[in-house]
Amino acid sequence: MVCAVIGLAFAFFLIAAVIRAPSGNERMREISAAVQEGARAYLNRQVKTICVIAVIIFILLFIFKDHSTAIGFVIGAFCSLAAGFIGMRVAVLANVRTAQAASVAQLNALRMAFNGGSVTGLLVVGLALLSVAIFYTIAAKLTGSDAAIRSLVGLALGGSLISVFARLGGGIYTKAADVGADLVGKIESGLEEDDPRNPAVIADNVGDNVGDCAGMAADVFETYAVSLVGAILAGLLTLAGNPAAIVYPFVLGGISVLGAILGILFVNVARGKPAAVLMGAVMINALVSAILFWPATRSLFPGGVTIDGILRSPAQLYFASLVGLILTPVIVALTNYYTSSHFRPVQKIAYASETGHATNIIAGLAAGEHATALPVLFIGAAILVTYQFAGLYGIAIAVMSMLSMAGVIISLDSFGPITDNAGGIAVMAHLPKEIRAVTDELDAVGNTMKAVTKGYAIASAGLAALVLFGSYVQELSAHVTARGGVFSYQFSLAEPKVIVGLFIGGLLPFTFTAFSMDAVGKAAGAVVREVRRQLQLKPGILTGQDRPEYGTCVDIVTKAALREMIVPALLPLVAVILVAIIKPLGPVVLGGLLVGTIVTGLFIAIAMTSGGAAWDNAKKFIEEGNLGGKGSFAHAAAVTGDTVGDPYKDTAGPAINPMIKVVNILAILIIPIFF
Amino acid sequence: MVCAVIGLAFAFFLIAAVIRAPSGNERMREISAAVQEGARAYLNRQVKTICVIAVIIFILLFIFKDHSTAIGFVIGAFCSLAAGFIGMRVAVLANVRTAQAASVAQLNALRMAFNGGSVTGLLVVGLALLSVAIFYTIAAKLTGSDAAIRSLVGLALGGSLISVFARLGGGIYTKAADVGADLVGKIESGLEEDDPRNPAVIADNVGDNVGDCAGMAADVFETYAVSLVGAILAGLLTLAGNPAAIVYPFVLGGISVLGAILGILFVNVARGKPAAVLMGAVMINALVSAILFWPATRSLFPGGVTIDGILRSPAQLYFASLVGLILTPVIVALTNYYTSSHFRPVQKIAYASETGHATNIIAGLAAGEHATALPVLFIGAAILVTYQFAGLYGIAIAVMSMLSMAGVIISLDSFGPITDNAGGIAVMAHLPKEIRAVTDELDAVGNTMKAVTKGYAIASAGLAALVLFGSYVQELSAHVTARGGVFSYQFSLAEPKVIVGLFIGGLLPFTFTAFSMDAVGKAAGAVVREVRRQLQLKPGILTGQDRPEYGTCVDIVTKAALREMIVPALLPLVAVILVAIIKPLGPVVLGGLLVGTIVTGLFIAIAMTSGGAAWDNAKKFIEEGNLGGKGSFAHAAAVTGDTVGDPYKDTAGPAINPMIKVVNILAILIIPIFF
Repeated sequence: MVCAVIGLAFAFFLIAAVIRAPSGNERMREISAAVQEGARAYLNRQVKTICVIAVIIFILLFIFKDHSTAIGFVIGAFCSLAAGFIGMRVAVLANVRTAQAASVAQLNALRMAFNGGSVTGLLVVGLALLSVAIFYTIAAKLTGSDAAIRSLVGLALGGSLISVFARLGGGIYTKAADVGADLVGKIESGLEEDDPRNPAVIADNVGDNVGDCAGMAADVFETYAVSLVGAILAGLLTLAGNPAAIVYPFVLGGISVLGAILGILFVNVARGKPAAVLMGAVMINALVSAILFWPATRSLFPGGVTIDGILRSPAQLYFASLVGLILTPVIVALTNYYTSSHFRPVQKIAYASETGHATNIIAGLAAGEHATALPVLFIGAAILVTYQFAGLYGIAIAVMSMLSMAGVIISLDSFGPITDNAGGIAVMAHLPKEIRAVTDELDAVGNTMKAVTKGYAIASAGLAALVLFGSYVQELSAHVTARGGVFSYQFSLAEPKVIVGLFIGGLLPFTFTAFSMDAVGKAAGAVVREVRRQLQLKPGILTGQDRPEYGTCVDIVTKAALREMIVPALLPLVAVILVAIIKPLGPVVLGGLLVGTIVTGLFIAIAMTSGGAAWDNAKKFIEEGNLGGKGSFAHAAAVTGDTVGDPYKDTAGPAINPMIKVVNILAILIIPIFF
Repeated sequence: MVCAVIGLAFAFFLIAAVIRAPSGNERMREISAAVQEGARAYLNRQVKTICVIAVIIFILLFIFKDHSTAIGFVIGAFCSLAAGFIGMRVAVLANVRTAQAASVAQLNALRMAFNGGSVTGLLVVGLALLSVAIFYTIAAKLTGSDAAIRSLVGLALGGSLISVFARLGGGIYTKAADVGADLVGKIESGLEEDDPRNPAVIADNVGDNVGDCAGMAADVFETYAVSLVGAILAGLLTLAGNPAAIVYPFVLGGISVLGAILGILFVNVARGKPAAVLMGAVMINALVSAILFWPATRSLFPGGVTIDGILRSPAQLYFASLVGLILTPVIVALTNYYTSSHFRPVQKIAYASETGHATNIIAGLAAGEHATALPVLFIGAAILVTYQFAGLYGIAIAVMSMLSMAGVIISLDSFGPITDNAGGIAVMAHLPKEIRAVTDELDAVGNTMKAVTKGYAIASAGLAALVLFGSYVQELSAHVTARGGVFSYQFSLAEPKVIVGLFIGGLLPFTFTAFSMDAVGKAAGAVVREVRRQLQLKPGILTGQDRPEYGTCVDIVTKAALREMIVPALLPLVAVILVAIIKPLGPVVLGGLLVGTIVTGLFIAIAMTSGGAAWDNAKKFIEEGNLGGKGSFAHAAAVTGDTVGDPYKDTAGPAINPMIKVVNILAILIIPIFF
């Protein structure tokens, strides 16, 4: 709690620093205000929509589960929403100031954008640590430690569920606006990115804030809170009665907040290439954590601890936490290789663009698939190693130590949309071209950072979901035994029920992403039709004589995003409940479902987020002047690839991350209700 | 055996009928000969490449396994190659005659194309039934029944392995030529499909024969032989000592040959819409089998049979076989819904084309993903039901009864490339436009038929692979027990080794298809460059004054296809061997790998084959005059989608089918070597 408070205090210090910075000329502030207004209006309506569903689930939990789980659900949901609002609010403050700072020097712009991201990072991590800690402390006082931990599952569900909605709603919004603006603006009318004559331009910039900032912040809150809860639950189940097992995940999280602060300070003093400076921050955080985790582990488990009947030394637990710290830069480096324009995969897509749209798409799809191999193999190795060290708890510790670096990682992630928006403001406010050049370069770095952090997010989500699945099996066993039965479920692959479960679970990410992409396609189509209508009605818009109606585009996307997010977001909930209640299915099929969702979800999410980023950077590679540069045949093909990649990397792919956890958490929660 | 011989005799009768039919004018025969020459040259070189690998594996099997398994491997490999040659040979005979028949009446063309396909169907099924039966009979005499069944696994491996190569090599060839020809011919130079001025046109037509005909025939031989062997193996393992269990799968296969013949006769007398006539043949086959399976089941198992300790009645076994017969039309109908231009999914892609290339691609990707849901749920239901009836053997019986209809199903499948080629010949030989209209309409039907049979193939492959996985577990148990150990593997999802296995296995289809699509992209790029070179060197080609050099394109694609097929084809072999020998992995991880490959393989294969066909038919839907028709903005976008769909549906997607079986067969085979 102390570390969380320090982190929050530092975040407020950063906010003050951001606000103090000059916010540009009046035109810039005006644009920023318009974007902010659109974003706020969208988030408010999104909250209303989500609240209806949240209230229904709260009532169901209140009736069929216990009161503290229901209250935990509300707290998780509220904090997830709050994280989204914070992320959006800070980003809007920072982007106009980044545009202003870009007129001074690149380094200033880099620091401003990064500090804006850091505020979100520290606030979200602090919020997650504090909310779980405070809820647990109070609930443990009222209901005892075991029951308190079980009601934490409610908090996790609240966080995850809201996060699925926020990721989907925001993701559909941002990409529908982006794709729509690109299709009709860039391709049909030959306008540049962020040209104020494009009627969808404000909607596009609003999208960056509600999708990449608000959606992402809610998502990371969820990932952090769920991993923390998962680790505590694994501690309870594998190490029953040892309070250190429950404290340990909190301690890891707290220590890393300090590491994150040092990393953030580093960015504010270091000089060098943007990507190198940012990676330096990650490395500092990892190093500080690696050093401090050891004394913490030894003092919490001085004599080691018995897990699965074997005594594990403090060093083994520490090594498990190290695996998480090492896995982070490994995944970051791998994703960087597959998505940065400096390496072969992205350049192959660029070269494939020379022979047309179709070969660009084929190359990009293949690149996304290729990008799955190494991360998944490393994740597999991490599972085997940490399980060897300390059983399921070892995996949980690795996840928590991986997630403990979320503070600095989000700072990188937020960096992307902030610089993107800063560039947008620079163009719309007619700032000099040099400023746009600065923000463009930072934007390219931000693109890779976004991809990299998505790789990190999905890797940690896969591991966290596995820990939750382990908890599902142990909870089910405890439940059956408590009811006087004999726990005989093997979840063996030789049982057809398990196979059918794997099939149904494997299906979920496919159907989920199919619906998400449909949603973006539909909403983008609506934007295209609206922009075409405006341009036809007022041909003066293109010559600059008429002012486009930005508001109608914002309105159309808002409505479409909220309408289209419902079906995919409810899909995992419905599937879990149906499998639980349909007679010949039940707990064994449900177990298969949980793992099936993790397996295909992991692959699809990596393929989509990496593939999408690779397409984007292949376009940027051409725009830098390679293969004919802007306006060439290859560039047109690359724009198509980038547009296809948009819903891949910013809507469907990242939304899988909370989705696979919702499925696993819900399964744990409903054990006592249905089985 | 008797039924197989009847089937083969009928096939020769059909060949005679096909050969007797008029083969068109001299120009048509000339084109047909050029295509045939290219196809034969390719297949000969493919055989040489594959033989090197086959000989190495034969030697390894001879040394590390027993002689009869090694001989079985050679027989399987040889028959699979032979099936490919037959498929190619007959198709080349039939397509020129179909073009000629189209000048008489649509019904004549339909029958000619279908009869050509039927020859392949009957020959392949007859070959598979006979080879397995004869090999088993001889081997059982020499080594006893149990050992003979185990060496049948070698035959299955030979068939599968060759089939992976044939599917990949042929698939890369056909799509590289097709994509290359389209990109530079249609899009850059505005030539029609099959325009003789396009230097890649002969290569394109050769591709249809070596990919869709030869590759497909090898694939179906493999699927049939492996399912038969799988059913026999499951019979041995679950019903040890009951000879009826081994005879039963043969009987089901034999009966269905008779049903297939009746179905083929039906097509030759019926009148009506092409799709309806073809579906009628499937229904007749299913009906005949459903009627005759019952007396056969009752006479083989008069008193029922005990499986997993429970007595199963003949009716339960019969019902298991009925599930297979019912699943076939169900999968066919579902795939038809997702891929035919008469229904919403395809039309949605067509409408999405109105807003550009990118929205067409997004819609197509989503459509492919949507198409996975219902087939997988039905497959899951079939697994639960048949397992309930008769355990693993019940699933095996369902697969065999499903596959028993392969004769008539391949007739449908071959129908597609034969009409496609017939159309090509019609255009190149400057036949009147009405004839092209007839072949175009049949081609559209053929497109859906091809998609439909791919759905059938992958569904049966998934089930067959599951049966093989069950056999893997039982063989492993028998092996460990025989070595004096205690079989304690649970393959439980709660074991991290199983999860890691699922991850590695899940990875294989992703990496496999990524390499395959890369290969098509690379080879197509080479074709594009060659065609551009020729057009630049001799501008007279486009005006008809110069003759293009067809041979160089054929050569380029041949070399590229053979070079590019090696890595993906060896990938599954290498993965299985590595997991078996790397120390901390071993049999449990391998078990997870087998199931992981089935799970993600099933989804990717359905998504790719259905998505690709949907793109193709969306283009056809626009070409029929909808949404602006040919030459419109929507049409250009639809052509892009069709081109992306090409490697999806004809290279990567269908090759997963033999791939998931190679993995499972190889695992069974190496148990005594490594564990």
